[in-house]
Amino acid sequence: MMKKVAVIMGSDSDWGVVQKAVSTLKAYGVPCETHVMSAHRTPADAAAFASAAKDMGFGVIIAAAGMAAHLAGVLAAHTTLPVIGIPIAGGIGGGLDALLATIQMPSSIPVATVAVNGAANAAFLAIQMLALSDPALAEKLAENKVKMAEGVREKDARIAAEAENL
Amino acid sequence: MMKKVAVIMGSDSDWGVVQKAVSTLKAYGVPCETHVMSAHRTPADAAAFASAAKDMGFGVIIAAAGMAAHLAGVLAAHTTLPVIGIPIAGGIGGGLDALLATIQMPSSIPVATVAVNGAANAAFLAIQMLALSDPALAEKLAENKVKMAEGVREKDARIAAEAENL
Amino acid sequence: MMKKVAVIMGSDSDWGVVQKAVSTLKAYGVPCETHVMSAHRTPADAAAFASAAKDMGFGVIIAAAGMAAHLAGVLAAHTTLPVIGIPIAGGIGGGLDALLATIQMPSSIPVATVAVNGAANAAFLAIQMLALSDPALAEKLAENKVKMAEGVREKDARIAAEAENL
Amino acid sequence: MMKKVAVIMGSDSDWGVVQKAVSTLKAYGVPCETHVMSAHRTPADAAAFASAAKDMGFGVIIAAAGMAAHLAGVLAAHTTLPVIGIPIAGGIGGGLDALLATIQMPSSIPVATVAVNGAANAAFLAIQMLALSDPALAEKLAENKVKMAEGVREKDARIAAEAENL
Amino acid sequence: MMKKVAVIMGSDSDWGVVQKAVSTLKAYGVPCETHVMSAHRTPADAAAFASAAKDMGFGVIIAAAGMAAHLAGVLAAHTTLPVIGIPIAGGIGGGLDALLATIQMPSSIPVATVAVNGAANAAFLAIQMLALSDPALAEKLAENKVKMAEGVREKDARIAAEAENL
Amino acid sequence: MMKKVAVIMGSDSDWGVVQKAVSTLKAYGVPCETHVMSAHRTPADAAAFASAAKDMGFGVIIAAAGMAAHLAGVLAAHTTLPVIGIPIAGGIGGGLDALLATIQMPSSIPVATVAVNGAANAAFLAIQMLALSDPALAEKLAENKVKMAEGVREKDARIAAEAENL
Amino acid sequence: MMKKVAVIMGSDSDWGVVQKAVSTLKAYGVPCETHVMSAHRTPADAAAFASAAKDMGFGVIIAAAGMAAHLAGVLAAHTTLPVIGIPIAGGIGGGLDALLATIQMPSSIPVATVAVNGAANAAFLAIQMLALSDPALAEKLAENKVKMAEGVREKDARIAAEAENL
Amino acid sequence: MMKKVAVIMGSDSDWGVVQKAVSTLKAYGVPCETHVMSAHRTPADAAAFASAAKDMGFGVIIAAAGMAAHLAGVLAAHTTLPVIGIPIAGGIGGGLDALLATIQMPSSIPVATVAVNGAANAAFLAIQMLALSDPALAEKLAENKVKMAEGVREKDARIAAEAENL
Repeated sequence: MMKKVAVIMGSDSDWGVVQKAVSTLKAYGVPCETHVMSAHRTPADAAAFASAAKDMGFGVIIAAAGMAAHLAGVLAAHTTLPVIGIPIAGGIGGGLDALLATIQMPSSIPVATVAVNGAANAAFLAIQMLALSDPALAEKLAENKVKMAEGVREKDARIAAEAENL
Repeated sequence: MMKKVAVIMGSDSDWGVVQKAVSTLKAYGVPCETHVMSAHRTPADAAAFASAAKDMGFGVIIAAAGMAAHLAGVLAAHTTLPVIGIPIAGGIGGGLDALLATIQMPSSIPVATVAVNGAANAAFLAIQMLALSDPALAEKLAENKVKMAEGVREKDARIAAEAENL
Repeated sequence: MMKKVAVIMGSDSDWGVVQKAVSTLKAYGVPCETHVMSAHRTPADAAAFASAAKDMGFGVIIAAAGMAAHLAGVLAAHTTLPVIGIPIAGGIGGGLDALLATIQMPSSIPVATVAVNGAANAAFLAIQMLALSDPALAEKLAENKVKMAEGVREKDARIAAEAENL
Repeated sequence: MMKKVAVIMGSDSDWGVVQKAVSTLKAYGVPCETHVMSAHRTPADAAAFASAAKDMGFGVIIAAAGMAAHLAGVLAAHTTLPVIGIPIAGGIGGGLDALLATIQMPSSIPVATVAVNGAANAAFLAIQMLALSDPALAEKLAENKVKMAEGVREKDARIAAEAENL
Repeated sequence: MMKKVAVIMGSDSDWGVVQKAVSTLKAYGVPCETHVMSAHRTPADAAAFASAAKDMGFGVIIAAAGMAAHLAGVLAAHTTLPVIGIPIAGGIGGGLDALLATIQMPSSIPVATVAVNGAANAAFLAIQMLALSDPALAEKLAENKVKMAEGVREKDARIAAEAENL
Repeated sequence: MMKKVAVIMGSDSDWGVVQKAVSTLKAYGVPCETHVMSAHRTPADAAAFASAAKDMGFGVIIAAAGMAAHLAGVLAAHTTLPVIGIPIAGGIGGGLDALLATIQMPSSIPVATVAVNGAANAAFLAIQMLALSDPALAEKLAENKVKMAEGVREKDARIAAEAENL
Repeated sequence: MMKKVAVIMGSDSDWGVVQKAVSTLKAYGVPCETHVMSAHRTPADAAAFASAAKDMGFGVIIAAAGMAAHLAGVLAAHTTLPVIGIPIAGGIGGGLDALLATIQMPSSIPVATVAVNGAANAAFLAIQMLALSDPALAEKLAENKVKMAEGVREKDARIAAEAENL
Repeated sequence: MMKKVAVIMGSDSDWGVVQKAVSTLKAYGVPCETHVMSAHRTPADAAAFASAAKDMGFGVIIAAAGMAAHLAGVLAAHTTLPVIGIPIAGGIGGGLDALLATIQMPSSIPVATVAVNGAANAAFLAIQMLALSDPALAEKLAENKVKMAEGVREKDARIAAEAENL
């Protein structure tokens, strides 16, 4: 049975951004569970969840947080599953603060970080990890690559024509 | 009996900077206890300590960390005592990353942050807090202010003369 | 009798942000006084206030300022009470300029700095300091922590369901 | 048979940093292959390698580059395997330039980015990914977590004693 | 016959900015061709185009991209024609990230970079290059310089008068 | 007779900001002349003006420019009069780029720089310089300082009352 | 009689940088007085000095400070003389923090700011101000401009020859 | 006859960096002339040179400057030849200040900017421009590309072996 992906966010205000991760996982048929857990307001819940995640059948944890973005790190502290961090914009550093708070982890406790607000790519990364032992999922990713290239070529034709007539 | 100050650092490599906090507290006769605890390597120890700190007779917690500087925030999550954060330089932001990771806490869980590597001022801040209910300690702080001003005036005399003869 | 908190801002244009500190203090029953004083336009008033603050029954000073944010530092220069600084966004550094101008104080004259525009946390920090010698106030802070956690759990239930049905 | 990890760097001058990734992989018994390939000097070699990587038995690609750090992105463009990016310090942004050039990938072509010069964590991340379908490897990671905590506790004892006698 | 200028953008969303380059080239009678090609979604197309550009009669390539702005560098890797890079704003660095990802190229593979979103100047730069062997084009550039100065002098007269009457 | 102040801007688009300098000078009865001159579009005009400024009766030159903000520096290169620089926001550095391009002048060719978009303060600075040999102007500045303080005190009364009733 | 220049620094540790201002003033025969005064350690002394400066025969005040660089602003608050600010490097912003803390003054209280550590240019700016009513001093500045140009031309000859023979 | 390249630097202290441009041009047999000219100390010389450059047989101007890096812009103001700017590190922005001062030119007066201290690439860019009408030069550039790739492949073999034996 396919491992599940946990999508955790530090505040319900992150949901607007994080939604894209959930919908991407669903589009690829990857089972997932979504939670709001705070490194500062419900630290015990977060620690308990991360500690039990592997045994609960999760394969990857995606964690989104802004400001003093500690959530991904706190979860990574309690599990050996890969943790993917989504820094959320909102602090005075325009997201760079959250990015650095998420990515600069001590040795042997990595957080696989994606771009600020990069919820879709967090999901794609989780899918790539699960696809390592799931050829059908890997095939879907390969098909997507082909479709993307076709999309660009269509845009090329349209813009080239538009430029011609400028 | 005077409340104690806990001085916690995330890594023994911070000790060179943090020492100044301990020596300042001792110079003012403030009892303190020093520990290495990591938000990522020993998260349960850190949570347990912060949860019990008030009952163990601590009045203020000073926490020093660099990089993804989560330690002060993690401790503040588990206590209602004032937590003072010392961001430690070392990440690619030259300490600014640690500063923003320490200071940008969610509402109602503040971290009283001092300058990057500002260990002495973390101690002075703790002393000011304890002096709120300890007139003798407040008196010592007032005397220090007078002595500081005298120190500046001596330097003024020396530099003014040196400039005269340039 | 409980010590008072002084809430000082450098310009009346900061009032929109600073209000949150006053309303938080009032919600916890902490007596406070609010003033506009400028480090550059009324420097003598600011110096006189800070020098007399302790004798006037104040226990903590909160100071909010933007741009060349000197107000907290100027007040700290004239008192041994803890001074909490709120950097106000507005300069070209997006608030980072005010943050660094507030926090980088010389040794033995600390400013306990909170996040840019972090007025609520400035108040919480002041309450934590006063709660050191006021068990009832400490109890209120502990109750707030429990309520916060419940709030997060309610949001978790709502978002988890919403994600399920995405 | 366990999948291999490819460790690619953009310049032989990155080898001093990247070595740590190779030695970490070897310490965990993970087979790996190391290459110098340049997004700008040997773009065809890089494209060919990434395109064939999955069929050659690779499960994860680690890519290290500095300055206009395009290597990880170029490899990710040609594969559906997870690509881990190590930004290398060296440009005028102190590594932040390389970090942003590595992490800000277009949707559906993620690069799992670790901290600047974070070679060890790149390896740990690769190991976590492979451990998803390798219980023995997962066990080793769990043991390491226990050992790390013990290491911190030993340091705590040493520093606490040292502080006592300051 | 005059060499052509290729105007390539990484995404059709860049077209709003890039248009100015095409219209400037047309205003000077310089033949050009416009394309959407992606360093990450159609890397093979981009490599093939750059490799063949010189033989197809192109003299200069203009490349616009944002975020992890690899397009100009990828094209430069496959040609010895001068490549002009237009960093497009959009990432968290406000365009500075794209600027550094475009300009920090390895030795002997330069990208002639213009300001963020500087599409008009990219075209002017291409025209200056082609004018090196085209005296008529050089003459047009010289005439433009005179006209610009006249434009400034007219504005001077208008503002000076307006200021007089303030 | 009082020396005149020249107010020069690099583009008529700066006029919205620069106006405040002209109106401030007029409010203090200081004669001034306003011009649009460009370091890049009319460099010869700018050089000629600065070279002749002293003989034309000017005492101070105020220069406003954004982006690659060269205007103040170019004028300073051709005169020994004090040149005051106003960096104008607009480039990708949010004005910081213009500030550093204005202020970082080589030794012995200073530009007295004010804050980004600080047109009023540029005028006040010019007035302070002229007041060095004009006691009546100095008196006006002193009166303004008193009036400012009164203004702050009025705001203090208003906000203090408003806070009381929050 | 020529007005004097006051050269004030916030700490004797700034003297290494500030010296250059004093020696430049002396080289031009401008009388000056040098002091160490701190906005935070001797705020009353600083306020008293600035308030009396004009009556004591000073024409310009130069103020150097780093970190939370409040000194120039504090002096400007108490005088209508022009105040020149020298931001001193040393904080985590590499001097940029001090620059923004010095330059971003409220309206009508300008600080004429020079580059970080720009002590020589602070002196040149003071000399330019005094030269407004001192033709002999203005003449010396004009002579210096000629000499500087000759210096550059000598260097041009030397480097041109060296390049020829590379 | 091949057009010459002018290599201009703002200060003889830039020569250590700029040398690499001259030696690269010589290695490709491109005639060049090297000068020290300052936008601020010898502005008239710089203007005269740029105005006459085309008639003197120059095809490209390379200009290197740091701090308030105006030199490339000042030269571009006086010519229609392509001007290549080399920002020189040295100001408080670590070269980023010089980069933005060089690259953010007004419309129709571009400066083709290379990376901070990128003297070699400035030369390669000039060579690419001249190669547009010089097939032999273009051939040399193509040969260099092949040689570069071979160099990378040799390094790959060496590092791969070294990694094997780690």
